[in-house]
Amino acid sequence: MAVNETEREAMSRALALAALGPRGVNPQVGAVILSPDGTILAEGWHHGAGTPHAEVDALSKLAPGAARGATAVVTLEPCNHTGRTGPCALALIEAGVSRVVYALDDPGAVSGGGAERLRAAGVSVEAGEQADAAHAVIEGWLTAQRLGRPHVTVKWAQSLDGRAAADDGSSQWITGPAARADVHRRRAASDAIVVGTGTVLADDPSLTARDGDALLPDQPVPVVIGSRPTPADAAVRRHPHTPLFFDGHDLHAVLADLHGRGIQSVFVEGGPTLASAFVAAGLADRVLAYIAPVLLGGSRLALTDIGVSSIGEAHRLTIDEWLPLGADLLAIAHPASLPTASTEGAV
Amino acid sequence: MAVNETEREAMSRALALAALGPRGVNPQVGAVILSPDGTILAEGWHHGAGTPHAEVDALSKLAPGAARGATAVVTLEPCNHTGRTGPCALALIEAGVSRVVYALDDPGAVSGGGAERLRAAGVSVEAGEQADAAHAVIEGWLTAQRLGRPHVTVKWAQSLDGRAAADDGSSQWITGPAARADVHRRRAASDAIVVGTGTVLADDPSLTARDGDALLPDQPVPVVIGSRPTPADAAVRRHPHTPLFFDGHDLHAVLADLHGRGIQSVFVEGGPTLASAFVAAGLADRVLAYIAPVLLGGSRLALTDIGVSSIGEAHRLTIDEWLPLGADLLAIAHPASLPTASTEGAV
Repeated sequence: MAVNETEREAMSRALALAALGPRGVNPQVGAVILSPDGTILAEGWHHGAGTPHAEVDALSKLAPGAARGATAVVTLEPCNHTGRTGPCALALIEAGVSRVVYALDDPGAVSGGGAERLRAAGVSVEAGEQADAAHAVIEGWLTAQRLGRPHVTVKWAQSLDGRAAADDGSSQWITGPAARADVHRRRAASDAIVVGTGTVLADDPSLTARDGDALLPDQPVPVVIGSRPTPADAAVRRHPHTPLFFDGHDLHAVLADLHGRGIQSVFVEGGPTLASAFVAAGLADRVLAYIAPVLLGGSRLALTDIGVSSIGEAHRLTIDEWLPLGADLLAIAHPASLPTASTEGAV
Repeated sequence: MAVNETEREAMSRALALAALGPRGVNPQVGAVILSPDGTILAEGWHHGAGTPHAEVDALSKLAPGAARGATAVVTLEPCNHTGRTGPCALALIEAGVSRVVYALDDPGAVSGGGAERLRAAGVSVEAGEQADAAHAVIEGWLTAQRLGRPHVTVKWAQSLDGRAAADDGSSQWITGPAARADVHRRRAASDAIVVGTGTVLADDPSLTARDGDALLPDQPVPVVIGSRPTPADAAVRRHPHTPLFFDGHDLHAVLADLHGRGIQSVFVEGGPTLASAFVAAGLADRVLAYIAPVLLGGSRLALTDIGVSSIGEAHRLTIDEWLPLGADLLAIAHPASLPTASTEGAV
């Protein structure tokens, strides 16, 4: 029995509900319960780890027996797992739901199998409705699940010859307005923005995502790594989100902590020491190098040491795009999985 | 009286003759003498400074009086200047030539005015025939005239983060085959290829322009700058052209010497010290940075110090092209004539 128009609309509603939930260790999920005649009986979404899953949240709003013969429309396959909450598949069966329409198969090895359990209980199950949209909602969560930590973008701006600043530290206007606007858009699309204390002390950045002087609607959580204290009057302390401070340089520990807070993507903005540390640790899932058409020479390098002593140890990248931005160029890259085969290199 | 088809063909021939002459302090020029009925009476070209100009070279092949009533077809306006040779305009008048067709006006303030002198003597003069082609023949000479020295291209290959090699000096295969083939084509199009003794000692480069293992038809003259001796068995000593060695680091003096030898374009290939010296001296008319998608970090910088201490002193470039070459990117740039206006740069 194919998905009907009423169920299709209910799925769109469920996707909107999913986004109401917080990002966290669990994915964002939404659910709508439809009566046999297509009326919405209840809506629910997942409010975060330890709270009921979306289906159960919706069912909880109904009187006992009210869901008998109903259809549950859910953005993710109902789970078949007893964790801090019981399996949703069982809850739906016990509520007397006769049909389940869901978007995305449960990617979890532990929690999966809900659809089979429902079918075994005689429930009509339809999978894949608006799966792409549902995937987009939890893409960051899926990536973080796969990585076991937030997705990390390491960004820097550099002169063509790889400098972050002139010898005296001056670096204003290395890149132009188009490149800077691009940075702000990407900040806004990240859950967190990460800098070292050196950058805080040297530049006093606000770490907000802006369009000109105006704050963009989405702001990344500011994260400061390092043992030096951040001054009481630092601009980052006026950020819309309360900054997180990590005393120490264990990047794996920092990322694990952020992951536990539901942060799925981080944007590492510097300075050179921190960027180099992320690259050296193999923790740069994406590299964004904004290259300005200027030569600086000197000692202020955009990347310092990344643990490469011989060419065979080079961090080879695959370029996703060379993107011109005004007079500047943005290199968007990710680590190459295989060494490059090539032949002759002598001058 | 417009240029006729016979004269047009004679100009094409004269352009081919021009290219037979050597590059030097004088431009390459060709000439054809046509009888009144359009038969080629004589051909000539300029064989180099101190030898007759093209028109006189052609006339010299004719018996006295044989050019009376003839048409001279020349790639450059006949000169009106007595230098090591007499003015060509006068020679043509005295030979009884009744018509002159030329391609390009004489760009020299001293040597110009030949057309006027010819017209004043009653000679029919047509200017501009195939001027673009004639310009292309002597473009390098014109550029060198304007600069007062050879045109300088400074080329380097670098990792995305601006390194020429890993810390142990290994650098093979930073860039890929397409980038290296591009380098060889550009070497072949240059009159000279310039390296420092450090590069000779470290890499023992052949400094030839190659297509795979095969030498390309045109080879740049190899030039080695620096006080350390080049080993007797160095590959550069087996170059098709005899290498030029300059003991010392006065780049202006080196370029003046090369200019005097008729070298109109030089391709500076390194290493980092020499490239940086050319950039610092403001002698890089064009920059070619081959950027490989790899991160190296460490101390082996593609550019070292270029005399910039503050951002206001940065060598700003105008990018002519960001040219993808396989997985690599070639930045083709020239010095920006004006400082870049821009606004906000804080993170």
